[in-house]
Amino acid sequence: MRDYMCQDTIAAIGTPIGRGAIGIVRISGKEALRILKELFRTKRGNKKEEFEERRVYYGLVVDEFGEPIDEVLAVYMRAPRSFTGEDVVEIHSHGGIVVVRKILREVLKRGARLAEPGEFTMRAFINGKIDLVQAEAINQLIEAKSEVEAKVALRHLEGSLSKRIEGIRNKLLETKAYIEAAVDFPEEEVEILERGKVKEKLIEIKEEIEKLLKSYREGKVIREGIKVAIVGRPNVGKSSLLNALLREERAIVTEIPGTTRDVIEESVTVKGIPVRLIDTAGIRDTAEKVERIGIERSLEKLKEADVVLFVVDGSVGLTEEDKKIWELLKGRKNVIVVVNKKDAGLKVNCKDLKEWNRCVEISAKEGKGIEKLSEEIVKMVLLEPEAVFGGEEEVITSERHRELLEKAKNSIEKALKSLEEGFESPEFLSMDIDQALESLGMIVGKVTTEDMYDIIFSRFCIGK
Amino acid sequence: MRDYMCQDTIAAIGTPIGRGAIGIVRISGKEALRILKELFRTKRGNKKEEFEERRVYYGLVVDEFGEPIDEVLAVYMRAPRSFTGEDVVEIHSHGGIVVVRKILREVLKRGARLAEPGEFTMRAFINGKIDLVQAEAINQLIEAKSEVEAKVALRHLEGSLSKRIEGIRNKLLETKAYIEAAVDFPEEEVEILERGKVKEKLIEIKEEIEKLLKSYREGKVIREGIKVAIVGRPNVGKSSLLNALLREERAIVTEIPGTTRDVIEESVTVKGIPVRLIDTAGIRDTAEKVERIGIERSLEKLKEADVVLFVVDGSVGLTEEDKKIWELLKGRKNVIVVVNKKDAGLKVNCKDLKEWNRCVEISAKEGKGIEKLSEEIVKMVLLEPEAVFGGEEEVITSERHRELLEKAKNSIEKALKSLEEGFESPEFLSMDIDQALESLGMIVGKVTTEDMYDIIFSRFCIGK
Repeated sequence: MRDYMCQDTIAAIGTPIGRGAIGIVRISGKEALRILKELFRTKRGNKKEEFEERRVYYGLVVDEFGEPIDEVLAVYMRAPRSFTGEDVVEIHSHGGIVVVRKILREVLKRGARLAEPGEFTMRAFINGKIDLVQAEAINQLIEAKSEVEAKVALRHLEGSLSKRIEGIRNKLLETKAYIEAAVDFPEEEVEILERGKVKEKLIEIKEEIEKLLKSYREGKVIREGIKVAIVGRPNVGKSSLLNALLREERAIVTEIPGTTRDVIEESVTVKGIPVRLIDTAGIRDTAEKVERIGIERSLEKLKEADVVLFVVDGSVGLTEEDKKIWELLKGRKNVIVVVNKKDAGLKVNCKDLKEWNRCVEISAKEGKGIEKLSEEIVKMVLLEPEAVFGGEEEVITSERHRELLEKAKNSIEKALKSLEEGFESPEFLSMDIDQALESLGMIVGKVTTEDMYDIIFSRFCIGK
Repeated sequence: MRDYMCQDTIAAIGTPIGRGAIGIVRISGKEALRILKELFRTKRGNKKEEFEERRVYYGLVVDEFGEPIDEVLAVYMRAPRSFTGEDVVEIHSHGGIVVVRKILREVLKRGARLAEPGEFTMRAFINGKIDLVQAEAINQLIEAKSEVEAKVALRHLEGSLSKRIEGIRNKLLETKAYIEAAVDFPEEEVEILERGKVKEKLIEIKEEIEKLLKSYREGKVIREGIKVAIVGRPNVGKSSLLNALLREERAIVTEIPGTTRDVIEESVTVKGIPVRLIDTAGIRDTAEKVERIGIERSLEKLKEADVVLFVVDGSVGLTEEDKKIWELLKGRKNVIVVVNKKDAGLKVNCKDLKEWNRCVEISAKEGKGIEKLSEEIVKMVLLEPEAVFGGEEEVITSERHRELLEKAKNSIEKALKSLEEGFESPEFLSMDIDQALESLGMIVGKVTTEDMYDIIFSRFCIGK
């Protein structure tokens, strides 16, 4: 179990471990400034007694024998005007593993304790600088695999989801007041509940929660990406299509020459959402496979896909093989027909294929139609893509939030049922509301358990 | 070819790429402050026109549509009081790849150019903030694999090597003045040269250069580590010894619980110097091998080693097998006999083995004697370990510096030879001195070629 009292001073490396120009050691707690004073020397080797808050000082960090470790910039942020709400000190040294770790070690020798993963953020939470949704958003922001994910995380960090949850909680508290009045004055019970429009309010609250729950589908896509399968007979241009999708993305990436090499893992993203291509080794040349190992196994594979791209060679027209695949896919709602090789003149086009709701004509070779195709892919998985990209709609992305919202919804449904059964037990009604309040409170951290802390904050990297 | 005019504004990610609490985008150049103003908003969403230098501001970074990208801290450092000597802006955002790259992209959109590797440091050099030795030291500091290496690099960064080189150059310049006077007044030539004690001075300078050159051996060990081979018959405790060496090191590492997992590559270091164990697969069980594939190949392998640890089981005494290995190793100067299993009582000890200069009794099992052994290992490769660790002596670690010092030394030797040949050609003498000055000047960057820039700075990581 961790110490949640925050009496001690913690420290950690704040930057990723590796080669880099700058490395940061961060210290938070009552002893932070004292430790800085012990470690820091001016360029001339003198001690420094005064550190104005939020000012950057240039100097040296020395070890216990007064030997310099590195030239650094140091900043002191006075409580409560800091990330954690405590006194915070940052020491910016040259990057690289050895120097940064050495500085951390010196900080620890002087009385700080190595921070647990997420402990800085936890302190920010405990000191009331952020709520639990915001704390989780910080982690999501750091871990974000796409810009859309980062955007949603930032919105949560800025407090928009918290406000929504708080709004719902306040409505519930209001409603609860009426219910409690009904309990206190049992004779006027029915009247009070009706006067308070308790039922209407509960339905309204339930709908609000349902709307958030619905957004989890979007949230999941944003977090986990879109699973796409590309199928079609041989030589219709499936790999060219893949490359064209990659290129569309690369065009953005290579605006910044030199950064690509730093990317840990390259992946396709479509409209900012990561796309994971399903291993279609077994179904890539679908028609062949149909003949060879039967339809079922191929279809089984396709079940994983959020979107199936069915590629045909428009310059040839529909062949028998195409038609076989066509028959296999018919009735599936997540298929986009991709008529390729528009550059070579189309013998079959999307009008001819109007049976299919979704069809896009492209030239993978010339990169034409790829933008439109990307849009179609995204439309298929997101109910309201504009809302997500525009950031107007609240999207929940956390499984923890979904579970708690689901619980709150169930409690409210129970409350509504009690009401419908004729206001027979306002006490039960009140208990249900309390349960809903508790679930919602746990989302933002108004209601907490220590277990929750461990579960949430242990997912963080050290130094955050 | 790069642009060395430094007219434009450059930007790069300054922190390592990866998961971390904090990420930094750094901008240097005339446009840095304008770009910050365009990107930065206060927490309330307002633009900010005034940035006091060296003050940390908390706010938001927005994209071109005014959409927030992240909550950040921003610092402005006004020229020339910055690392590069130009206007520098740092934007500190949440870590993670997506957010930091997005901010960099926004900075580039507003007119900065992505920095080449080492370009920040190069600007610092061009603007006279640091010399070339110091620039190289920054890279070495970042790349340092051990604390000793980092320490040497910092000393160079602090200017101690530069001062030494400058000192030698000044002596040379002084001497040159006498030589030139001799050229101008050929009648008094001999007298002038003698009055100036030109010969004595040149010898003194040569010795100073030689001393630095000698330190390169230390420098190489510091940079590349010590190659150690552990040999001995089976079951004398070779792997236990290896583990004991590892443990000695781990004890230091684990002062900081939780950081070990972040280390990219674990290796043994002895007294802060990395130790590379030579693949002794072929010679590990030396005695066996001797029988099987002959002596020569085993010995060949041992040639790579800086230090050979010959392990015997002291609780058993010397066996026939031990003696065979003994014969093989006799006469080698880099052997340390390690009498293991002291814990089980010694039937043979270091006194019995006094033929060997170096012998250490240990108990690998109990970790006893390992500290002593480490010291012996270091003593064997470093001429003056105290000087290196204490940091009193200048150590050169760069092949470039060694080459240029060697060149300077040769020029001075030529000059001395001319002198000995009877002052016949003060003009040649002068040319030799000039060449020595040029070589020394190239070390600190007083004399530069553009090629040199590319070679030196392209080794840096981007963002430095």
